[in-house]
Amino acid sequence: MSKLDRIFSDRISDVPRSFIREILKVALDPSVISFAGGLPNRELFPVAALKEATCKVFDTQGRDVLQYAGSEGHAGLREYISTRYREKANLDIPVDSILITSGSQQGLDLLGKTLLNEGDAVVIEEPGYLGAIQAFSLYRPRFLPVPVSGEGMDPVALRSALSSRPKLMYTVPNFQNPSGITYSDQNRLELARILEETDTLLIEDDPYGDLRFTGHARTSFKELLPGNTILLGSFSKSLVPGLRLGWIVAPPALMQKLITAKQATDLHTSHFTQGIVCQYLRDNDADEHIRMIRDVYGRQCQAMQNSIQRYFPAEVTYTRPEGGMFLWAELPLDMAAMDLFELAVLDKVVFVPGDPFYVRGNRHRTLRLNFSCADVDTIDVGIGRLGKAIRELMERGAKQ
Amino acid sequence: MSKLDRIFSDRISDVPRSFIREILKVALDPSVISFAGGLPNRELFPVAALKEATCKVFDTQGRDVLQYAGSEGHAGLREYISTRYREKANLDIPVDSILITSGSQQGLDLLGKTLLNEGDAVVIEEPGYLGAIQAFSLYRPRFLPVPVSGEGMDPVALRSALSSRPKLMYTVPNFQNPSGITYSDQNRLELARILEETDTLLIEDDPYGDLRFTGHARTSFKELLPGNTILLGSFSKSLVPGLRLGWIVAPPALMQKLITAKQATDLHTSHFTQGIVCQYLRDNDADEHIRMIRDVYGRQCQAMQNSIQRYFPAEVTYTRPEGGMFLWAELPLDMAAMDLFELAVLDKVVFVPGDPFYVRGNRHRTLRLNFSCADVDTIDVGIGRLGKAIRELMERGAKQ
Repeated sequence: MSKLDRIFSDRISDVPRSFIREILKVALDPSVISFAGGLPNRELFPVAALKEATCKVFDTQGRDVLQYAGSEGHAGLREYISTRYREKANLDIPVDSILITSGSQQGLDLLGKTLLNEGDAVVIEEPGYLGAIQAFSLYRPRFLPVPVSGEGMDPVALRSALSSRPKLMYTVPNFQNPSGITYSDQNRLELARILEETDTLLIEDDPYGDLRFTGHARTSFKELLPGNTILLGSFSKSLVPGLRLGWIVAPPALMQKLITAKQATDLHTSHFTQGIVCQYLRDNDADEHIRMIRDVYGRQCQAMQNSIQRYFPAEVTYTRPEGGMFLWAELPLDMAAMDLFELAVLDKVVFVPGDPFYVRGNRHRTLRLNFSCADVDTIDVGIGRLGKAIRELMERGAKQ
Repeated sequence: MSKLDRIFSDRISDVPRSFIREILKVALDPSVISFAGGLPNRELFPVAALKEATCKVFDTQGRDVLQYAGSEGHAGLREYISTRYREKANLDIPVDSILITSGSQQGLDLLGKTLLNEGDAVVIEEPGYLGAIQAFSLYRPRFLPVPVSGEGMDPVALRSALSSRPKLMYTVPNFQNPSGITYSDQNRLELARILEETDTLLIEDDPYGDLRFTGHARTSFKELLPGNTILLGSFSKSLVPGLRLGWIVAPPALMQKLITAKQATDLHTSHFTQGIVCQYLRDNDADEHIRMIRDVYGRQCQAMQNSIQRYFPAEVTYTRPEGGMFLWAELPLDMAAMDLFELAVLDKVVFVPGDPFYVRGNRHRTLRLNFSCADVDTIDVGIGRLGKAIRELMERGAKQ
């Protein structure tokens, strides 16, 4: 079927191939310690409670949830989300503003579909979430990367990017993927003030928001900039990813278009899985479960920092995440994380080099380290191996 | 957020609004008899067996299927599909050629994504499946409708459409939605011979193929035209729609692009629901279940034809489906199904007027009648009401 080579759409060629997929194949070797994944810790999945909730759903609403259903999503689950926003985040989100999606990745696809014309400008974080870059790439926008660092997004660079009148700006302000950083209150206020004067819609993607293990909760952009903000949420990190459930909060005019797009895309997300999560949330204390995840991730994050302190040369800098699943390290000048990867894999430890998280440049010095899936002892061994590889790479550089 | 009005993508404005959604709202009134839906009969869902399979999945692979997983889909389920094609349809479909999708509606979206540039020509059936028109519309193709009738697709009109060098041709050759017709063996052979000489890829969408209650199985396009055919399948009609599971069969070069698109779109379809269906299919006789559905739908289809014979004026023609869920009727000249709808809804019976199934023209004379969801007695009452409304409309016409 060689005729196929000529038949593909232009857009599909624009999607960056996921280097992470390749890495994860290496990580399947059980002797390799992997900090490369982006997975929640499967040991913390509430399997028994989900099974119980599922049995109840079969017994009480089996035929309903196994039938075709509304594109907007399961009424009970949308009500739960609305109530939780009111109680936990002081946000008034009407049920009609909530669309259930097949993971928040699908939220990105639906937003790209409904909002982006080819060539539209989109502000993204640099480094930024690869999944968002991939999802938006299908709609062929022009990406405007704006650097993020310790305090959040660079306001000067943002102002400059806004002169291109971007349609969208995409952020993960809490425990960002890949960097683990959290936008400070002051940075949020400043960005909101800048954006207020524009037509740019802000996408606030908050998959990790619940997973704060230190510091204090920050004000959401949805609160600071209610009219211009689209909020994305997910059950993947606070519960399980395998049920593929996320949601979009959007204003009415956009919601109508999103529902049309959702219907054309896959009719609706399974009401069976939605019913299960809804039942689970009624019968269990979601916050107790989240506290348990936070405790474990918090310990593992601290352990990773301790091990880095012990094994890495002082020239390597790294973020101190207040939550989430990732820590971000930066190698000394003239070193490339890709080179480190080549060495580290020989020492049976892997991570994600920074490159895939940037839309410009290559041979970046940065790397992403996941701490959610390895226990404290494994983290220590793995970071030890990585420290050794870094020193090796530094010595090579010194010799040249 | 009035600024939103200016911000939507061009593509989202191209998607036809689903008139069917509006009708289904009317059908919620329990005193209304509805032939408007496109739903499988919920009374036939194997709820107990699915519950049992689900419990097993929780017990044996709970953590695996609740975690993130591969974009291609659940290995066991893909193997089952491959084996079934070999055993039931004499088709050799390697597991690697199968991508699990969130219903076959998502298959359409992914094919649009990977194959269609704006303005590419796409041959569709006239009348054609509304969901396909909606899915492809998002990629802004030029639709080339080619009439289908009793024997299949008009080969002369197809030849003429092919002069525009369409990239894709979309068909539902078995018990088509909306018309219920099945392409004859001769028609399939003729179409295959015509397409063989072209670069046009054929999408053979076969959601109803298992639901044949009379006549003999026809040769699939995948068998007649293996190199140019993409096959879509679904568990929605032969099992349940609410788990949202379908699949695409595509050649390797296209499969690679489809996986990239799938990953960017929603990472993967739930391995939890895939695991459930896989377990169900291992523990149960799928064919026995399908025979039961066929028997019920076959009886209901025959009852609808009997009632039509009894209550409709002889000037109304209609298809005699050999399977599936829909029957298609055509009103006499100068009548519009939309006008009939207005009258019929007052008599508490609804159906889908033909208009949404065409991309050209309006006030069509045709209408779609679903027979899968109403029992024989209800069908008789509903068709009686509809017959009365048709006569009323004819008399009005005669008076004018």
